[in-house]
Amino acid sequence: MPKPLEFWFEFASTYSYPAAMRIEEACADAGVPLIWRSFLLGPIFGAQGMTTSPFNMFPVKGAYMWRDMERICEESDIGFVKPSSFPRGSILAARIAARHGASDWIGPFVRAVYTANFSDNRDIGDDAVIGAILEEIGLEPAAILAETLSPEGKAVLRKNTDEAQVRGLFGAPTLMVGDELFWGHDRLEQAIDWALRD
Amino acid sequence: MPKPLEFWFEFASTYSYPAAMRIEEACADAGVPLIWRSFLLGPIFGAQGMTTSPFNMFPVKGAYMWRDMERICEESDIGFVKPSSFPRGSILAARIAARHGASDWIGPFVRAVYTANFSDNRDIGDDAVIGAILEEIGLEPAAILAETLSPEGKAVLRKNTDEAQVRGLFGAPTLMVGDELFWGHDRLEQAIDWALRD
Repeated sequence: MPKPLEFWFEFASTYSYPAAMRIEEACADAGVPLIWRSFLLGPIFGAQGMTTSPFNMFPVKGAYMWRDMERICEESDIGFVKPSSFPRGSILAARIAARHGASDWIGPFVRAVYTANFSDNRDIGDDAVIGAILEEIGLEPAAILAETLSPEGKAVLRKNTDEAQVRGLFGAPTLMVGDELFWGHDRLEQAIDWALRD
Repeated sequence: MPKPLEFWFEFASTYSYPAAMRIEEACADAGVPLIWRSFLLGPIFGAQGMTTSPFNMFPVKGAYMWRDMERICEESDIGFVKPSSFPRGSILAARIAARHGASDWIGPFVRAVYTANFSDNRDIGDDAVIGAILEEIGLEPAAILAETLSPEGKAVLRKNTDEAQVRGLFGAPTLMVGDELFWGHDRLEQAIDWALRD
């Protein structure tokens, strides 16, 4: 019986992008139940004394990451354009994904937001862009936004981020199978294999 | 015609260990010429404002790395014991590997030093241990050490480290195919594929 795999992602995170684009199909192919967990990296980086992305703090490493992203996206056959702003905050998208993580449209929504940021260079920090994305995937924004922005709705992202910190997450994407933690897009296949172990 | 692959490694680097153990065979199987490039990470981390390994600076990430190493070494069927001291400096071993990078015993020497550090928990910072390792792989230390510790011998490691910095290396292991840089043990197969491209 495959164990569920939790996919912890943050919309500003570069390596979360190819993972987000591939994970639903990869889990379905393997018969592994997928749990979407939206969280924020900012508070986690902050607790380690960082005020921005490590890729901005260490520019040589950042330059490599952008080249690596080009190669990965080419290999995975997904579009890639370096965003004109990085990292793009997108608390509204993160809140929607946290609050509606178990909805039947979570996969399409997550992929649409990542594609907007990393392939179409749209400003996912702009609430109007997020509203437009909801419409583009055939949803009616009003009810979704109302549920997301209620006190209970907002609390889900905060709870997820607190849980991420308690469970030892330090970056994104992170794949969890029970307490076993796998960090990075590179570990997607390994995490799925782990979920299939007896 | 496969391009040569440069393997940039540092003996204290954890993820360099599985790469070092696997790379000679992987390159031979693929018909890719392998160039061993020993260098020091300390000056490179220092230039980025770091005074020790990022795994010590960020303990949550460090805890993950040790678990990840266990999984990788188990999967690669190589021994692993967390060293009682980390990172272990080993300038003598690094100098030997830099000065004798084109010798016919470089592969066995590199693997023996990594095995000593990460599987047998021997202090590779102790010159006597490095001398013993040379003997264990059937070499006579005296001539090797004399060549290594001459001014010209010592200069090779310094030159390698300077070159690493100029070429944008920021961690280890790094695999270079011409100017194309691949960082990490995870990228070993991808770098070999790159060397095989037309």
